[in-house]
Amino acid sequence: MPEALKALEGVVMELEDGAFPLLRGIVPTSDLAQGFKNVDYALLVGAKPRTKGMERGDLLRDNAKIFSTQGKALSDNAKSTCLTLVVGNPANTNALIAASNAPNIPPENFSAMTRLDHDRALAQLALKLKADVATIEKMAIWGNHSATQFPDISNTLVSGKPAKEQVDDKWYRDTFIPTVQTRGAKIIEARGSSSAASAADAAIKHMHDWVLGSNDWVSMAVPSDGSYNIAKGVYCSYPVVAKGNGKYEIVQGLTLDAFAKQKIQESVKELQDEKNAVKELLKK
Amino acid sequence: MPEALKALEGVVMELEDGAFPLLRGIVPTSDLAQGFKNVDYALLVGAKPRTKGMERGDLLRDNAKIFSTQGKALSDNAKSTCLTLVVGNPANTNALIAASNAPNIPPENFSAMTRLDHDRALAQLALKLKADVATIEKMAIWGNHSATQFPDISNTLVSGKPAKEQVDDKWYRDTFIPTVQTRGAKIIEARGSSSAASAADAAIKHMHDWVLGSNDWVSMAVPSDGSYNIAKGVYCSYPVVAKGNGKYEIVQGLTLDAFAKQKIQESVKELQDEKNAVKELLKK
Repeated sequence: MPEALKALEGVVMELEDGAFPLLRGIVPTSDLAQGFKNVDYALLVGAKPRTKGMERGDLLRDNAKIFSTQGKALSDNAKSTCLTLVVGNPANTNALIAASNAPNIPPENFSAMTRLDHDRALAQLALKLKADVATIEKMAIWGNHSATQFPDISNTLVSGKPAKEQVDDKWYRDTFIPTVQTRGAKIIEARGSSSAASAADAAIKHMHDWVLGSNDWVSMAVPSDGSYNIAKGVYCSYPVVAKGNGKYEIVQGLTLDAFAKQKIQESVKELQDEKNAVKELLKK
Repeated sequence: MPEALKALEGVVMELEDGAFPLLRGIVPTSDLAQGFKNVDYALLVGAKPRTKGMERGDLLRDNAKIFSTQGKALSDNAKSTCLTLVVGNPANTNALIAASNAPNIPPENFSAMTRLDHDRALAQLALKLKADVATIEKMAIWGNHSATQFPDISNTLVSGKPAKEQVDDKWYRDTFIPTVQTRGAKIIEARGSSSAASAADAAIKHMHDWVLGSNDWVSMAVPSDGSYNIAKGVYCSYPVVAKGNGKYEIVQGLTLDAFAKQKIQESVKELQDEKNAVKELLKK
């Protein structure tokens, strides 16, 4: 948006003033072709926010237009190996739209961010157990980056022992899950604006692990491959192990109980509804 | 300020959501005694901003009251080895006030931030010479963290060669110096708010080097020891080498030309005027 170029100038100045030894150049622009020219990595962080009185369908369609344009511009200008992280909401469906409009880039090279939800889940469990987050393994976020997401501790270990044996099920269902699902709204309520530092931190961690690999599970919204009965054709958050260079493997072979299966399907249903609302902009 | 506690709650939530493995606890409070209890490091980042129609003397005195209270609270509650970085403006004089009200902590354990000015100077020189910032050594900021500061390239090397031989003197005097001096105002103009990310980055670097040491020169406002004819009793920015654990050495033996000497004394004069305006709050 050309009207944002003045503020962008301030961002450029602050980046310069960091005197970062690895920052070799900055191209501030509102021209997509110029901005995406030969890029290796793209972070699509902006989206149109929901305003008062706006219907959810209108919000989806307005954002779908933005992300279809960005997907096409990436396809036409970026390297075909470019990895694109979508942060702007509705992130999963925006990633789907961007990928479907980018014929020159594989759909697996697009992902939407659920790492902030993942880290929020780690933090809440650590607070509850008075444990360090570093002692927690195998956390999982399933589904949509929205209030229907399913933060899942079915397979989570804390100091090597099952998390489920260390917290009671009532806390897990009635406190943990809604706290993680609605954390974004709570932060807006307290700060008067959306989470910023924690979202930026999560985006850095997402790209870091996608490029360099992860030891532990991380959560990313990626094209569904049908695993766990999740319908193909949506960008769904799964627990994955990042293999580096943009490769990842959806964790396979997990046993999900009826509660987990139901929660996941509820969120996938929402993803399918979102997809349906923007179907005229999907290209492949 | 108790009225800021709601927003502080949002900051706490975002820190939790970072799932940082080394973050072991957070104490959000507007009670200075509780906040400073046994701390090893303190960053005083907030100050009262200048509002329309406010006289500079009033601003100085209002901030002096804040920092005298904080200095006393640090003295009464923090470890006597505590290192305190003052970022809130007028930073040099606020550091002086805080230190003079902290009888249990050595004045050398307080410093004011000119690292952002230092990094801005590195960035401007690097941009001019199309050089990487990592190739630049021996930058120096002298004086007050204000528009009178003197960014000094007299001894600066770029790729091992004197910077002064690589830029013309007119650019140095008429572009470089005012650009660094007024960079903060330019960023406010572009962004509509003060530099934030670059200031935070500089504060981290300042504390990092103060605690762990620096190889190259860094700029810090520290108690004047009379070096370079700078009056004692003010917090003045010097080029220093950080030795780790809060120790530093002001770089000695530099040759300063008449222009440099004059620029430094102009800024020191401002520091003395500021000191004079708040003298009733100075304790030692």
